[in-house]
Amino acid sequence: MKTRYPLMVVGTVAIDAVETPFGKQDAVFGGSASYFSYAASFFTPVELIAVVGEDFPKEYRRILEERSIGLDHLMTAKGKTFHWKGKYGSDLNAAQTLETQLNVLLEFKPKLKEDREPEYLFLANIDPVLQWEVLNQVKRPKCRLVACDTMNFWIEGKPAELAKVLKRVDMIFINDGEARLLAKESNLIKAARKIQTMGPGTVAIKKGEHGAFLFHGEQFFILPVYPLEEVFDPTGAGDSFAGAAMGYLAKTDDLSFDNLKRAIVYGGVVASFTVEKFGLERLRTLETSEIEERMADFRRICHF
Amino acid sequence: MKTRYPLMVVGTVAIDAVETPFGKQDAVFGGSASYFSYAASFFTPVELIAVVGEDFPKEYRRILEERSIGLDHLMTAKGKTFHWKGKYGSDLNAAQTLETQLNVLLEFKPKLKEDREPEYLFLANIDPVLQWEVLNQVKRPKCRLVACDTMNFWIEGKPAELAKVLKRVDMIFINDGEARLLAKESNLIKAARKIQTMGPGTVAIKKGEHGAFLFHGEQFFILPVYPLEEVFDPTGAGDSFAGAAMGYLAKTDDLSFDNLKRAIVYGGVVASFTVEKFGLERLRTLETSEIEERMADFRRICHF
Repeated sequence: MKTRYPLMVVGTVAIDAVETPFGKQDAVFGGSASYFSYAASFFTPVELIAVVGEDFPKEYRRILEERSIGLDHLMTAKGKTFHWKGKYGSDLNAAQTLETQLNVLLEFKPKLKEDREPEYLFLANIDPVLQWEVLNQVKRPKCRLVACDTMNFWIEGKPAELAKVLKRVDMIFINDGEARLLAKESNLIKAARKIQTMGPGTVAIKKGEHGAFLFHGEQFFILPVYPLEEVFDPTGAGDSFAGAAMGYLAKTDDLSFDNLKRAIVYGGVVASFTVEKFGLERLRTLETSEIEERMADFRRICHF
Repeated sequence: MKTRYPLMVVGTVAIDAVETPFGKQDAVFGGSASYFSYAASFFTPVELIAVVGEDFPKEYRRILEERSIGLDHLMTAKGKTFHWKGKYGSDLNAAQTLETQLNVLLEFKPKLKEDREPEYLFLANIDPVLQWEVLNQVKRPKCRLVACDTMNFWIEGKPAELAKVLKRVDMIFINDGEARLLAKESNLIKAARKIQTMGPGTVAIKKGEHGAFLFHGEQFFILPVYPLEEVFDPTGAGDSFAGAAMGYLAKTDDLSFDNLKRAIVYGGVVASFTVEKFGLERLRTLETSEIEERMADFRRICHF
């Protein structure tokens, strides 16, 4: 029987090199679409649109397959897989990019198969030109929600292309520094209001160890971060945050503000697991029951 | 009829000079005990133990009197009032101290009148030697809760004196940077756990624009910050946070964890008003109804 995928994501699949105060790994399975789809898969079948090079390890592919992530759109191209090398200092809040090799991403032309009609689409952090191409292949209003992420590299490097994308998305997940940069406004609340005028009526601002803000029309929600005694590797926290949130939305198919809040809390919960180990290590042993336990914990520690 | 004061605070009353990105004032009524008692007065009668110099303006005294703050222990000594000069950069989270003149504080010997038996005592940010002297004049178990604050200046300058005080307090209000310094531990959760072993079973960590953590025995609560589009002057935010929280505890006389949480939320609410204008300006026009409205707002924006 053919799996139906209510959620689709376009983004990067990468071989990362990561250094944190707690250790160093030269080859970690990474990329925005990898973290996103792995996190989303706890809630809904999800399909990934991405490209890898000939060097892409079979075991990485198996990692995605073990969660039943749809790989029909995972292309293999001549050349090497996208590579990111980053380092975290003692505050762990911001990565310093040491190296970016776009490799196969340079020639990537995402193409959706004819029969694909995702109801939820996520344009993960990748060149806005590629986000735009995927956006144009999706049928509205069949697709109920399109959300995106982006980063300083595209905000500064391709502002016009990004502006086009923003005009047509319903929601954005963006970190605090990038929200300030995009809106040219240091106060985050004002920045979010300004981003809403650029297109997305719903804005989720990820604040790392300080949690997240959600803006939906005039409405507002604050999510504190789940308190951890050890943060091992923050890579992928933002992508798994978005993945869990979008996965939950696709599963419940409810875009009310109350359900958006719950989605964001699931995002915070799954991200809090991601950072406990390197790369996808922690998510690979994660059980749904652990997610639900931490969700209950979350409610206990922030309700009064 | 004589007012009964269930809450007492010892701390500084100051003439501050404050510079923020939004303006500059050379003489602002400040000090830890001033902000604390003003904020507490919205919940309970509160009495202040402090010293001022001969230059202390009559109008500042009237500001305290307008809230029925007990001034029997506000001594006037020869010399000048304690003076603090500080500056905030664009992030508004940390003040840079430009000048501190202890003046009359140098000879201050706090002495409680015989008939005073406060049920709640706050040792605001001041020399731990003075905190200790007040602590020794208070009758236990009549006094149900003693809480304190402190700062890097005392943590580094008088560690032994501070350690003595900590051993005998039930609760501490401390900001994030100072908690890290006191515990010699960068992770805030571990830092709080370590501070609990130094004496106070209840630890409230103030994180400025990122809200607060509350640790009570094994229990834990996170308070996000109330979102403001404009933060005008953060001076006194921490002291009014503690003032409102302690005022609410003294008013309700309930030390359950649920009530401690509510106290902390009231602290966050009143502090969010304090920072809207210079010094005590905003609190002087604050109505109880506004506090209750923002409390309801708070619940709406962080419950899910």
